[in-house]
Amino acid sequence: MTEEDGVAKQDRAIRTRRTIVEAAAVVFQEQGYEAATILEILNRAQVTKGALYFHFGSKEELAQAVLAEQEGRVEIPARACKLQEMVDLSALHAYRLQTDPLARAAVRLAMDQRAHGLDRSGSFRQWVDALDDVLSAAETQGELLPHVRIKEVCELIVGAFAGVQAMSQVLTGYEDVTQRVAQLHRYLLPSIAVPAVLAALDLSPGRGAMTAAELDSPDAPTAVLV
Amino acid sequence: MTEEDGVAKQDRAIRTRRTIVEAAAVVFQEQGYEAATILEILNRAQVTKGALYFHFGSKEELAQAVLAEQEGRVEIPARACKLQEMVDLSALHAYRLQTDPLARAAVRLAMDQRAHGLDRSGSFRQWVDALDDVLSAAETQGELLPHVRIKEVCELIVGAFAGVQAMSQVLTGYEDVTQRVAQLHRYLLPSIAVPAVLAALDLSPGRGAMTAAELDSPDAPTAVLV
Repeated sequence: MTEEDGVAKQDRAIRTRRTIVEAAAVVFQEQGYEAATILEILNRAQVTKGALYFHFGSKEELAQAVLAEQEGRVEIPARACKLQEMVDLSALHAYRLQTDPLARAAVRLAMDQRAHGLDRSGSFRQWVDALDDVLSAAETQGELLPHVRIKEVCELIVGAFAGVQAMSQVLTGYEDVTQRVAQLHRYLLPSIAVPAVLAALDLSPGRGAMTAAELDSPDAPTAVLV
Repeated sequence: MTEEDGVAKQDRAIRTRRTIVEAAAVVFQEQGYEAATILEILNRAQVTKGALYFHFGSKEELAQAVLAEQEGRVEIPARACKLQEMVDLSALHAYRLQTDPLARAAVRLAMDQRAHGLDRSGSFRQWVDALDDVLSAAETQGELLPHVRIKEVCELIVGAFAGVQAMSQVLTGYEDVTQRVAQLHRYLLPSIAVPAVLAALDLSPGRGAMTAAELDSPDAPTAVLV
């Protein structure tokens, strides 16, 4: 086998894996974790059983892969103001819920109370960790009010976001999720940011779409992975 | 049939209905809406099929009855400060999630994304309406900051509460839900209450247990149904 063959093979494997994860996302979203079967995921992905089991040993591994998709997406343009980065992170996630089936599937799995045997805590923890990094940087830069306890605020934002998006999904099918998340920011940030930073923050509902466009643009600013 | 017979019969019917709703709550919580069957609810309630169908025509009606249980519970001691009443409402609900299987079942149903064909929006709307009454009274009393939009704040609190409780359920099995809800209040209320009111509010995590005890006490203060 030539080196090129190897690369082509690897590329194909990555594409196949991606196809399977996307199919799994759709099936989990439509059926829920309990009712979903590997057979349905196979049918939807149009791959062989061998290919699927090469990448994933079980339904749980498939679900964890869908949940982990979020991880690869926690990437935002670096901002001089770290609280703006935090706002952009949530705003972007809200925007992705409107536009990206994989983001929707991951959130639904994380919130699926019937998913017995699936550890859903990782998804919450991962977001808490991502916010923790950004808020710690904000603290170093003097952007936070002195009483703010970082871990508390991170958990509060992740929890509140989870509920606000769930409510948007139930009431409007995600149509107003970016507005609702913007409101969450507007009411929470006065308890978090020092006034001068608060005044400079852009908390508008369009922030997520703008951030997504920035990341996709060829002259994108340096993106940070949190 | 004497009048007394009629009253006894009615009492029995109310008790039977209650038994069925409690059994349904347990089955919905254990199985989720989709997987739950009327047969399981029958077995758990230990009532006849005739009795069940006398009260409820379908699985959806049973689920709506569990959701409606919350309604009967939105009762709190009247407070001179209406924002304290709002805090007590959330704090009490958090406490009930720790102590009352019916409260847990209703929240789970409202958050059950797999419950196709069950209108879950009512549960969110009902809480929004309850908060709306209290916040409108708070506004009349001059307790709110001038920029506060009542409907926005009500929806935000209901949404954020839903997520905070879900996160507590996933991470700690509701052990820390009263603390998490207290933190939500602590970070949100500075954007809602005028400073003098904010300073007088009791936002401690024990507030829910205290309010529940007040409601149960024989010399309970006037309770308001919101």
